[in-house]
Amino acid sequence: MSLARFTEDPPRICRTFLSPTMRAVHRQIEDWMRPLGMTVTLDAAGNLHGLYPGADGAACKLLIGSHLDTVPDAGAYDGILGVMLAISVVESLGGRRLPFAIEVVGFSEEEGVRFGVPFIGSRALVGRLDEELLSRRDSDGISVQEAILSYELKPSEIPAARLSQGVLGYLEFHIEQGPVLENRGFPLGIVEAIAGQTRMELVFTGVANHAGTTPMESRRDALVAAAEWTVAVEKSARDIPGLVATVGALNAKPGATNVIAGQCCATLDIRHASDATRTQSVSAFLHSATEIAKRRGISLTSSTKLVQTATPMDSLFLHEIDAAVSQSGITPYRMISGAGHDAMVLAEKVPAAMVFLRSPGGISHNSRESVLVEDVAKAIECGFHLLNQLAVSPEFQMRANRA
Amino acid sequence: MSLARFTEDPPRICRTFLSPTMRAVHRQIEDWMRPLGMTVTLDAAGNLHGLYPGADGAACKLLIGSHLDTVPDAGAYDGILGVMLAISVVESLGGRRLPFAIEVVGFSEEEGVRFGVPFIGSRALVGRLDEELLSRRDSDGISVQEAILSYELKPSEIPAARLSQGVLGYLEFHIEQGPVLENRGFPLGIVEAIAGQTRMELVFTGVANHAGTTPMESRRDALVAAAEWTVAVEKSARDIPGLVATVGALNAKPGATNVIAGQCCATLDIRHASDATRTQSVSAFLHSATEIAKRRGISLTSSTKLVQTATPMDSLFLHEIDAAVSQSGITPYRMISGAGHDAMVLAEKVPAAMVFLRSPGGISHNSRESVLVEDVAKAIECGFHLLNQLAVSPEFQMRANRA
Repeated sequence: MSLARFTEDPPRICRTFLSPTMRAVHRQIEDWMRPLGMTVTLDAAGNLHGLYPGADGAACKLLIGSHLDTVPDAGAYDGILGVMLAISVVESLGGRRLPFAIEVVGFSEEEGVRFGVPFIGSRALVGRLDEELLSRRDSDGISVQEAILSYELKPSEIPAARLSQGVLGYLEFHIEQGPVLENRGFPLGIVEAIAGQTRMELVFTGVANHAGTTPMESRRDALVAAAEWTVAVEKSARDIPGLVATVGALNAKPGATNVIAGQCCATLDIRHASDATRTQSVSAFLHSATEIAKRRGISLTSSTKLVQTATPMDSLFLHEIDAAVSQSGITPYRMISGAGHDAMVLAEKVPAAMVFLRSPGGISHNSRESVLVEDVAKAIECGFHLLNQLAVSPEFQMRANRA
Repeated sequence: MSLARFTEDPPRICRTFLSPTMRAVHRQIEDWMRPLGMTVTLDAAGNLHGLYPGADGAACKLLIGSHLDTVPDAGAYDGILGVMLAISVVESLGGRRLPFAIEVVGFSEEEGVRFGVPFIGSRALVGRLDEELLSRRDSDGISVQEAILSYELKPSEIPAARLSQGVLGYLEFHIEQGPVLENRGFPLGIVEAIAGQTRMELVFTGVANHAGTTPMESRRDALVAAAEWTVAVEKSARDIPGLVATVGALNAKPGATNVIAGQCCATLDIRHASDATRTQSVSAFLHSATEIAKRRGISLTSSTKLVQTATPMDSLFLHEIDAAVSQSGITPYRMISGAGHDAMVLAEKVPAAMVFLRSPGGISHNSRESVLVEDVAKAIECGFHLLNQLAVSPEFQMRANRA
């Protein structure tokens, strides 16, 4: 709640990539990190790193973190709670050293608000903060590169932000931003995978005509065709466990009260933990659209706007988190993340895992976003048990030896 | 086709209220009227009148006309064909006088393009071109009143444009602008009534949520609710003969690909020749919306934007037109006009009737709008027979006596 006061748009919460308020957040977090024996640095992409050294000679490190930026008119917890939880878990060690170092990371950018591209922070760690992205401009015409320079950071040092050898993995605590944990009565959820995603646009083209002079049987109404398909998508999605499919907009042309729509553009967002299920569903939905269009004498085109494969979380971490959650007195509940997270990006290079905290009302990206204090306490307890388990895990030790 | 060359937006056809090109149209039509022995005047609302006198002492007159303005990117026939047909019917008399005068009227405005309000021309004839309408402004800030002044007409003389005593009725030839006559194989249609109309707006309010993190069973998706209702409206409308019901737009908020719509605004346009059927259908559709919303945990509000009762055409005219159509070798086909026309406005004050000409492909308000030459010939023939019948009709004579 202290950090929520750092905002560009009071009283609403909003923190975008390397804004002046982000510096205040960095300072505040640094003030909390240092007393715990952490060495604080900022990389060239504006990510805050707090290194808690391991036992003598520990060459490897475990990353724990999340992002510090927000959407406009955000809640207080999305992202930044995960950074604070990482610090709290370190604090729970009471100064004790583990066989590996812990690096708390506060990513500079995850939401994609300022430059229309998400994950600027974590991309730098996996080597994907490239020239094209650096030259993107915000609505004021300032490029990512210029924003980095204004923050007194050096774009030339971005390559040095890449994950070094010896990183054993990445853990992220994050609010669920959905209703599943609350509905099932679990304070914490163990993310098995981050769902793959397909985004499409379908255009139904019929014949625009006069709403008064065209009898029902003579119509080729593009909007009703798209509406019928929207209902069919929902019905099918309900039958496939774990699938979410959303038609977020139906834009009819001309879109007038007294004109039968000649064209209707529908958006589709489909997500599932299994790439095969997602791909099959996309095909089924397109087939259904084709059938509806054909029966109605309407033509159909579709285009794919985004395809993102599913990201499974690391099985060793999953196994150890199950145990840590049990140790905290909670039944381990495995779930899928329908939203993308920094862990998805980090998983390109290192083993990654996520723990979700229950979101009351499933509300997020909203000032009413909240979290229960007792769930936060459970998350810290779980993190504490997890670190202790990893410290003695032979498999984790083997990873360190290989690193 | 000559008149189609008079346009404000070449090569597209567009003629709005009292534009400079309208003056050229007036001049051209006047040049065709005068040789037929017609006296041409322009009233203060910009309506062109061509008076063809009756036999000596004829105190009454029959109006025949339609409108001269167009929608943007219009076809060549909507409206103006009816004015040309009126002139041609007069011409077919070969100078012969009838027991009543004929006044051909070319209305200045019917489409509502320039000022967002239709029927400016015919409103003047029924005394409804009021102060409020006169003060409406177009997109350049010019009021109706100012447009009239610029055309060198006097707004103070608008009251004199009202229908005088002795008007026996109003006849209008117009293209159908729909597919019914073509589908049924009739060149001409006899309009029994102009359909009544209700326009509504329904707002479905659910909960906007993340498309990735909200399972299907936890959603309160306003767009799918509105889509389900749209399909139900179409299905019900198909079951009620003569009813047309159109959802022309579904505007979802926020309307983003990856957000479940929290709100969806749907437009509804319902028309039927029977006001009772229309009113019952409105109730049934609202009931269906309420039921769908309730089942989905969504709230619903609705507002009525327009209610227009049905306008029956005059029964004597209908009877005589039936006979005139038969006389022209065509089976009389009675139909409903789903669109509003000047005849609807004139019917407030005098007996009115309409004859539709087949619209190839049902296409209108479009540069591909067309009409068959043989259908135009049949319309003239029908008009010729109708005038001859009315000239000897005892009932029509009684009307003249009462007028």
